[in-house]
Parts: sequence; C-alpha cells; structure tokens
Amino acid sequence: MSQKIITISREYGSGGRLIGQRVAQKLGVAFYDKELIRMAARESGYSLDFIEENEELSSGSFLYSLATGGAYPFQNYTGDHMSPQDKLYILQNKVIKDIAQRGPCVIVGRCADYILKEWKDSVHIFIHGSKESKLKRVIDEYGIDPSDAEKEIRRKDKRRAAHYKHYTDREWGQAGYYHMTLDSGFFGVERCAEIIIQTVKI
Amino acid sequence: MSQKIITISREYGSGGRLIGQRVAQKLGVAFYDKELIRMAARESGYSLDFIEENEELSSGSFLYSLATGGAYPFQNYTGDHMSPQDKLYILQNKVIKDIAQRGPCVIVGRCADYILKEWKDSVHIFIHGSKESKLKRVIDEYGIDPSDAEKEIRRKDKRRAAHYKHYTDREWGQAGYYHMTLDSGFFGVERCAEIIIQTVKI
Repeated sequence: MSQKIITISREYGSGGRLIGQRVAQKLGVAFYDKELIRMAARESGYSLDFIEENEELSSGSFLYSLATGGAYPFQNYTGDHMSPQDKLYILQNKVIKDIAQRGPCVIVGRCADYILKEWKDSVHIFIHGSKESKLKRVIDEYGIDPSDAEKEIRRKDKRRAAHYKHYTDREWGQAGYYHMTLDSGFFGVERCAEIIIQTVKI
Repeated sequence: MSQKIITISREYGSGGRLIGQRVAQKLGVAFYDKELIRMAARESGYSLDFIEENEELSSGSFLYSLATGGAYPFQNYTGDHMSPQDKLYILQNKVIKDIAQRGPCVIVGRCADYILKEWKDSVHIFIHGSKESKLKRVIDEYGIDPSDAEKEIRRKDKRRAAHYKHYTDREWGQAGYYHMTLDSGFFGVERCAEIIIQTVKI
C-alpha cells in the first residue's frame, strides 16, 4: 500500500478505534491502541496502573496548570521538573516512533498524528460523528447509562481536545491537520474502514 | 451511486474546483460552480455583472456590518431591507435546491453543503491543502504574481470563512461539518477525485 502508517484520531463514541481495528485486520498489519501504554510502561519501569492513571489525568494537569497560572507551551518546555503526565507523553512519543520504524501499522489516539507528522508514508485520519450516532454507540456498545451518556461524551472529548492542545498546540478536529476526516455517523463503521483501505490502496 | 449530490467546499488554491470537475466528468453527472451564479442571474432579472460583483462583496458586507455595529445573525433576520448580497444568497439557495432535485450532480462552493445539509443522498466534502501546495497552484495555474500569492490566499480564504460564517453560523473547515475532508496537497488532485468516486460507489 502507499501509506504504511495509518494514525486514527477520533471523537469519543465515533467508533474510530473499531474502524482502526477493522482496517488493520483487513490489511493484515499491526494495531496499536492501549498496547502503546503497556509498551511505555515496560520501557519506563513505572507500573501499568500508575501509567494508566496518569494518562487519564494528563489534560487535568494542563487545566490545573492553567488555573494556577503555571501553564507553559509543552513544545518549548525545557525545565527539569516534568510532571508524570509529560514524562509519559515523551515515553509514548518514543514508543510510537519505534513502532513506526518496525513496519506498516494502525495507531489509534495518543497524538500519533502529531508525533508522526513528518513521517514518510504515513496518513493521518480523524473520525467524528453526529451526536445521535455517538450517543447510540456509547449506550448500546460501551454500556454507558443513557442519562449520563451526553455528559460523558462531552467530558471525554473536552479532555482529548485539551490533551491534544497541550502537547501539540493544535485545535483538535480542525480538518487542516488531517489528510482525511470521515463522519462515521454518516458512513458507518464498515464503510469508513472500506474508504480508508481503498484510499491507502489508490 | 449511493450519494447523488456531491458538494465540495474548498480552500483557495486547493484545487477543489478541479477535483469537483474530475469527479463529475468521471461519474458522468452535471457540474455546477459559476453556472449557479448565471442561473441565479436569469431568475432574478439582475445583470450577471451586478451579481458577480455582489457575490464577491458578500463577506465584505458582513465585515462592514460588524464594523458599524449592525451585524445580525442572517438565519434569524426577518427585516424587509435585505442587502443585495443577502438577496443573492437566497436566490442561490433556491437555485441549488432546484438543481439538486433534477438529479445527480457536483456543486462547488456557494454554501451548498449547508443549504443541502438535510438533503437525502448528498455527501458534503471539504478540500484543503498545505500552504506550499496552494502557493504552487495559484502561481503556476492561476497566474498569481509570486509576491502576492500568499496574501491573496489569505484574503480569499478569510472572505470565504466570513461569508460561510455569516450565512451558516458555522466555522469553515471544521471537520465535524463535513462527511469527508481531504488534503489535496497530500493526495494530489487525481487521487482526491478517485477517493471521492470510490467513496460514493462503496
């Protein structure tokens, strides 16, 4: 195929992770998502629990630093006293570049689009969806309580946007940062996977 | 094909119009761009010159009204004294809905994605490109003076964004508003056309 590394960024509930899995499966290439966290854990010597906890809190850290007036652009930060979240980002950055070198794969989330933005033979995709389609998915498939679903989608996406902004200084979901974006509410998971496969094959 | 109406919104210099032409040609369907203005002119009784002049100025009108404190959300405007630009928008709105009813086609620009947002069997696409790829196109293909090219791209896109915001209250180029967005600097014009054709065929 033309592009060997496919990164997928996605709104919560858009089915982007599932689309990534389908694409990897059909192309017969490796798939990375949570696995990246485990790999970072192994490299770091931190426990998996510690890493998962800190990854979840990374945007909280940024919001906290904003609130306390201590925000800094991560890209220019040269201080010695990095937060656990920032250390984790750097570990994941290293792990993502390592696995990109190993061969064709699909990577979901973890700012991989930004980390590999200069990577030859990579294509960066963003998956979004209508509110209705995301609500249906998080209730039916993720088992979120219907009365909490809308709030949970907002909370997760706010964190993802803040996390992305913190580490990339980019606006999450702006078309200009991705080679392709797809509406999974419109196309559905299977058709999105098929479009991506066709695209990397053309 | 699954989607009968394809709308294409595009950054200046992204080659979006050319991609739309290729798609229409290969699918054997009608293509509308400037033609829409002529159709609106015929319906309105205004001269073509008058219409072209006012279309170009439509975002200027909005900026002017902002500057003078007279801005109003177009969607909620019920006043009798509409500007020529707003009258033209309403004419184009009518013309776009008329041609959508006639059968499969590709429509470039003119807020057609918003006007046909509830239209069954329509797919809405946004084409963007890297600064380098757009500079190359406007200099080599549109004949813009190299020393003016960057400024001209900024000026045109600022107008398009303001025009779109004025008539739709949406942010131009935000992935969430389109079913698909493509980076023509990355894929190139021919591959973008091929991706769109494959997508409407899947």
